[in-house]
Amino acid sequence: MHYAKRKRGTMEIMLEILKSCEDQCGITKVIYGAGVNYLVAQKYVDQLVKIGALNVKTDGERKYYVITEKGKILKGHIEQFLKLRQDLDEVRSKVIELLRQ
Amino acid sequence: MHYAKRKRGTMEIMLEILKSCEDQCGITKVIYGAGVNYLVAQKYVDQLVKIGALNVKTDGERKYYVITEKGKILKGHIEQFLKLRQDLDEVRSKVIELLRQ
Repeated sequence: MHYAKRKRGTMEIMLEILKSCEDQCGITKVIYGAGVNYLVAQKYVDQLVKIGALNVKTDGERKYYVITEKGKILKGHIEQFLKLRQDLDEVRSKVIELLRQ
Repeated sequence: MHYAKRKRGTMEIMLEILKSCEDQCGITKVIYGAGVNYLVAQKYVDQLVKIGALNVKTDGERKYYVITEKGKILKGHIEQFLKLRQDLDEVRSKVIELLRQ
């Protein structure tokens, strides 16, 4: 059963960032965890802070981010979303295969 | 939780036709079961016959259609597809709602 691999999008990147910040994370950990560059990482982190999914802590000049309760709920929904989307892709492929024969 | 209701598409129409022909159906039953006009009904039925999801029986001048084993498998996959798509719409709405706050 073959079906096209999707390009990594907003949902996948957000999930990786939320996972990276389950304990606490600096921007470098976010960059490596999500596999994005500094600007992209900071854009997502700022958005997640803005909606209250991450809290900011400062330690001298360094900033740290920690997932909030809302962030944990968001993480759960995103994981569910990605799982369902994959299941949907698989069953769509099965239907298409049957319709072709 | 609000999310846009989808327009009825190919998957929904095929499912209704396959359901209508679980015992045996003439084209009239298909038309009423799937809520489509004669031309659309015949187009779908012909495609389902072509791929082996429906068998044709003739009784004098009348044609009847009966779901095949392949048709039952297709029906199951389509049901699964529609259920997953609805679940995905719901969880997508939840994520969007959290991202907006």
